[in-house]
Amino acid sequence: MFKKEGINSDYKCWLKYYEIEDEYLGRYKKWLENIIVPKNKGGTDSAEEEIVKSIIAELKTGFYKLIGEKVVPHSGDPACSGFILADILDSRDLIREGLTVQEREEINRDGFLIKHYDSGPKEGLVITAKTYRGLLYGVFHFFRLLQEKRELRKLNLLENPDNKLRIINHWDNLDGSIERGYAGKSIFYENNELKENEDRWHDYARLLGSVGINGIVINNVNVSRAASDLLDDKLNMVEKLNTVFRKYGLKVYISINFASPCEDDEIGTADPLKESVQNWWKKKVNNIYNRIPDFGGFLVKADSEGRPGPFTYDRSHAEGANMLARILKSHGGVLIWRCFVYDCQQDWRDYSTDRARAAYDNFMPLDGEFEDNVLLQIKNGPMDFQVREPVSPLLGAMKQTNQLLELQITQEYTGQQIHVCYLVPQWKEILEFDTRARGETSRVKRVVDGSVHDFSLSGMVGVGNVGSDMNWTGHTLAQANLFGFARLAWDPDLSAEKITRRWCRYTLGEDREVNAKTAQILLKSWETYEKYTAPLGVGWMVNPGHHYGPNVDGYEYSRWGTYHRADIHGIGVDRTVKTGTGFTEQYFAAKKELYEDPETCPDELLLFFHHLPYIYKLDSGKTIIQHIYDTHFEGVEQVKEFIDIWSQLSDELEPAIFKNVQKRLKQQLESAREWRDVINTYFYRKTGFPDEKHRKIYK
Amino acid sequence: MFKKEGINSDYKCWLKYYEIEDEYLGRYKKWLENIIVPKNKGGTDSAEEEIVKSIIAELKTGFYKLIGEKVVPHSGDPACSGFILADILDSRDLIREGLTVQEREEINRDGFLIKHYDSGPKEGLVITAKTYRGLLYGVFHFFRLLQEKRELRKLNLLENPDNKLRIINHWDNLDGSIERGYAGKSIFYENNELKENEDRWHDYARLLGSVGINGIVINNVNVSRAASDLLDDKLNMVEKLNTVFRKYGLKVYISINFASPCEDDEIGTADPLKESVQNWWKKKVNNIYNRIPDFGGFLVKADSEGRPGPFTYDRSHAEGANMLARILKSHGGVLIWRCFVYDCQQDWRDYSTDRARAAYDNFMPLDGEFEDNVLLQIKNGPMDFQVREPVSPLLGAMKQTNQLLELQITQEYTGQQIHVCYLVPQWKEILEFDTRARGETSRVKRVVDGSVHDFSLSGMVGVGNVGSDMNWTGHTLAQANLFGFARLAWDPDLSAEKITRRWCRYTLGEDREVNAKTAQILLKSWETYEKYTAPLGVGWMVNPGHHYGPNVDGYEYSRWGTYHRADIHGIGVDRTVKTGTGFTEQYFAAKKELYEDPETCPDELLLFFHHLPYIYKLDSGKTIIQHIYDTHFEGVEQVKEFIDIWSQLSDELEPAIFKNVQKRLKQQLESAREWRDVINTYFYRKTGFPDEKHRKIYK
Repeated sequence: MFKKEGINSDYKCWLKYYEIEDEYLGRYKKWLENIIVPKNKGGTDSAEEEIVKSIIAELKTGFYKLIGEKVVPHSGDPACSGFILADILDSRDLIREGLTVQEREEINRDGFLIKHYDSGPKEGLVITAKTYRGLLYGVFHFFRLLQEKRELRKLNLLENPDNKLRIINHWDNLDGSIERGYAGKSIFYENNELKENEDRWHDYARLLGSVGINGIVINNVNVSRAASDLLDDKLNMVEKLNTVFRKYGLKVYISINFASPCEDDEIGTADPLKESVQNWWKKKVNNIYNRIPDFGGFLVKADSEGRPGPFTYDRSHAEGANMLARILKSHGGVLIWRCFVYDCQQDWRDYSTDRARAAYDNFMPLDGEFEDNVLLQIKNGPMDFQVREPVSPLLGAMKQTNQLLELQITQEYTGQQIHVCYLVPQWKEILEFDTRARGETSRVKRVVDGSVHDFSLSGMVGVGNVGSDMNWTGHTLAQANLFGFARLAWDPDLSAEKITRRWCRYTLGEDREVNAKTAQILLKSWETYEKYTAPLGVGWMVNPGHHYGPNVDGYEYSRWGTYHRADIHGIGVDRTVKTGTGFTEQYFAAKKELYEDPETCPDELLLFFHHLPYIYKLDSGKTIIQHIYDTHFEGVEQVKEFIDIWSQLSDELEPAIFKNVQKRLKQQLESAREWRDVINTYFYRKTGFPDEKHRKIYK
Repeated sequence: MFKKEGINSDYKCWLKYYEIEDEYLGRYKKWLENIIVPKNKGGTDSAEEEIVKSIIAELKTGFYKLIGEKVVPHSGDPACSGFILADILDSRDLIREGLTVQEREEINRDGFLIKHYDSGPKEGLVITAKTYRGLLYGVFHFFRLLQEKRELRKLNLLENPDNKLRIINHWDNLDGSIERGYAGKSIFYENNELKENEDRWHDYARLLGSVGINGIVINNVNVSRAASDLLDDKLNMVEKLNTVFRKYGLKVYISINFASPCEDDEIGTADPLKESVQNWWKKKVNNIYNRIPDFGGFLVKADSEGRPGPFTYDRSHAEGANMLARILKSHGGVLIWRCFVYDCQQDWRDYSTDRARAAYDNFMPLDGEFEDNVLLQIKNGPMDFQVREPVSPLLGAMKQTNQLLELQITQEYTGQQIHVCYLVPQWKEILEFDTRARGETSRVKRVVDGSVHDFSLSGMVGVGNVGSDMNWTGHTLAQANLFGFARLAWDPDLSAEKITRRWCRYTLGEDREVNAKTAQILLKSWETYEKYTAPLGVGWMVNPGHHYGPNVDGYEYSRWGTYHRADIHGIGVDRTVKTGTGFTEQYFAAKKELYEDPETCPDELLLFFHHLPYIYKLDSGKTIIQHIYDTHFEGVEQVKEFIDIWSQLSDELEPAIFKNVQKRLKQQLESAREWRDVINTYFYRKTGFPDEKHRKIYK
């Protein structure tokens, strides 16, 4: 039986390590007497040394928590049969000999192999990798196998991450606030200094490392004056965080302000082609790498939403990015450049400009111009993390430019961690989307892992959702989004169901009913949220600024390029080539044709691509207006079901977790009702169409 | 000829004192040799002594600025013919003898008499009053007469203010911000302390005193934690400001937090019927009057928009107000209680609750229960300072309760001192409104001056519009609102045209064309603003929070009780007794009947009282929808005219003033266009009705 922990166990997320029952344990207990770890390397590479320490610590912690045994790892060779050996591939003959040539070759940089070793006299389990980081991942995975009570004898399990880069972006400001943060203040900063919070950073690094995240951008892409100082005056803060995160295999990156050299009186410009500017950056970068040799690189939001960039000097994004990339390259650093660039001073009267077109229009002409250590960071959709958008046509279109897919784990537009909105199903749809970039099988996941166009670097980035709340994510179920992102970044072929089952088991324990019901809520929650919010892909019916709650016209007469164009007859944005903004032409032919025609365009994206009358019939046979009414009534009913399901778990769950979710579900219901009534009333008032089913729509 | 001053002369507002031409001056020059002022009183009443100093200073300043002469006032008797004597009534035989009994009796507390004295051998001008404050007002008025080149010989001019209280409310916060302030930061506070700004306070006190303002509430009605300390720890700040403002006859009041005793651990409650609470307040009030004997009293916003109040303890507003009033009474202080009380957690789905009803419903039942040093401060309309509202039915309805009319000088909903919106015409309409409280002639101005119901105390309050901007009000023409408010508070019978002419002359100089054209803009500006914003009295089509710019549904689904209820067929709020919220019944019969029937309801208030179809015909013969289109096109054209008119004055005006207004007119035009297009498009999209005149309405 699993033993439950104290009320704050939600702090431990998926590293709860519920005690394992004796019966299963008995099979392997002998092995624990012989835990073998890497030899001390003598400090030649301190980053690796630190990871080795973590490996040893994790072995001790894991066995103690799961089995209650204090193990004493050593670095000798297995003296007798029955051992667990965790070391890198080239370190020991036993490992080399135990693996086939093919096995040895197949392990990639961050991958690992867990293999049962049985030479007759000696039997045990080998966890191995080509790097210490891979080995750490293997150790964490080994404990997951234990928790799942997998048969370790006969095991031969190779795990390679599909994506080279698996990064979390923090939108933390140095004043302690987090842009779009819904789980308290920053765990890193306060009053422009680091908090005294090292234990928590350690626990966070461990959480991320345990699921294979290998990079973290530690400050907001909107770089404040204070955050600009991370480059130099406040570099000690970066250094400090790096000492923590590298223990678990994470590279530390910072967001920089492209215009920083302007503030140097002797430079006074940020023109990337000016030597003075290049020298200014060189000095900064050299200094960083002198102090942090394993520093990751820079993330830049330039020429976007008021951020400065190369446009100021009539230079291209490529010129801007390459200047920085060349400087970073000599140190092994990368330069990540965001593609979230659009006209944020649009006139709502203007029907020809289309924000959806912007990323493609801005970057596609530059394909092939970027240095090979530049990565373009592309949001999943052409707009901005709405509950439903088509996939960005830029993904896959650029054939010669390293790409990162940017997803948003923090729930800016998806309920702000008050609503349960499990995003793994959404992300799966995005990853499985076939761009047709190279024939039939150019799914986003294969673009992003670099296999469609053979990128030298690529991967996935998620905007983080943690803060100082004790349970990290405010809503405890939102932990599943962080976990799910990491697992998809590692292996985008995983199904949403499998990820969900695993998260439930690691987080909530072994009770099948609890896990099944929790999974039921999680897996339905995105659909539910979509139902009671903006319909049919049109998006943006939220309150401006904070983005919580319904406001149908909230962005309708604004400068942000985010419109629904609803009038007495119809609604939606015509983005066709034939009669609209021509956005559809940015897709490869098969998709373009699909979206161009309302008859073939998927219903869920219909109003994103087309302006249609309310009486237009969907595939379901319903009119648009009746669909709006129906989904909004259904969405609220589904939240009520969630509340009902959850209430059945009150005796099975730890009280802290039960209450946390219960309280938020009630808030969600209240908000969902507001959404339902505002949206339904808005369209009833605008169209005069009654609900066919005569439900209550307020005047 | 008038001589123009430097570019910062807009700082001096209506106290510019342009030099007077010799020809006019010659007639009275001899009098200047003999300027007589009050004798030194020996410091028995320091407040009066301070006013006498101001009188002497004003005489010196006025003559020096207007005539270029350094006069030397003395306090002896006129030795020969030709003098100007400014002293109070009982001070000198010459004054007593020069006035008839009736004249002496007619002067009221703050009034004054300016009379030509001619006994044969001695001739001169007497300025007199019953109080030194009245005398100060007389001196300022004398200089206005000089500027207007009035014939002083044969003059016999009695000026009595109609309203006893003429108060400015400052919504200044101690952190230096101003709630709804549009002219920079507070002139008083910064970082919860007083600024080093005494010269400016002096100039402000002088500006206000010159037009008869006799009270100032120095902090925001929404009392922050820091501002609560004005009662004790920060009382020195009140004391300091009082020493400045009393020089010009202004009493200083503070806004208090009704719940302040709660924060005292030994009290822990603010229940007004608890002796401990009463004693707590007694102690505070005693301490204040010990240090500031001429302190004015308290202003309280209680049980409103989240502010605490007596409701918390199940006590009435009367119980709350009276408790404080009794304590203040022994010191001669007054207690001002705001009637801006309503349910700010309303549900937009709820058609029966009506915010417009709230003030009347809350306070009317309490008529007669308030102490005689309590004043209820009642906003002009039942909602909140919209560009057009009916007059609050509470004005005049309470027969036994002292009342203050609250107007908003700061342009929260009327263009925020970016738009020119001269509010004197609006205020005149309010003041001239006949409540019918007692027969045919119960105009608001007569309610407010206390003559309809014989109030012991009453008057007018304006929420101030000044800040740290060099010209005080941001928009230079907004100075006219402050001036106009003060003049109406003094004499509500003054016409808008007369006030405007005078303001122009004092502020801009003697150029007739300049003044006529400026007056033309000013007098039309309210009508213009109304035209391009929310139509027909419905209000509230603004962006939530900051309240600038159009947002038709901005408050439509909110908790604030501010709705327009526009649907495909019609628009407006049904507030009739017959089919609506019954708000109309709060008016006296003649007005109730007028508003109840859409056929008799004035067009400009039609949608405030009625929900009507867009095709409803107005008195003008136009449909509502066509009226909306027409007024919105017209409003923008009128702003263009303002720009055209103003541009004609470029050579005649001081550059600072010209540019200040020119720049804002351009901003106004841009905003007015946005209003026009958003409102027109909103209704076009909602109704499908085309514009009869085929002007451009965006889809």
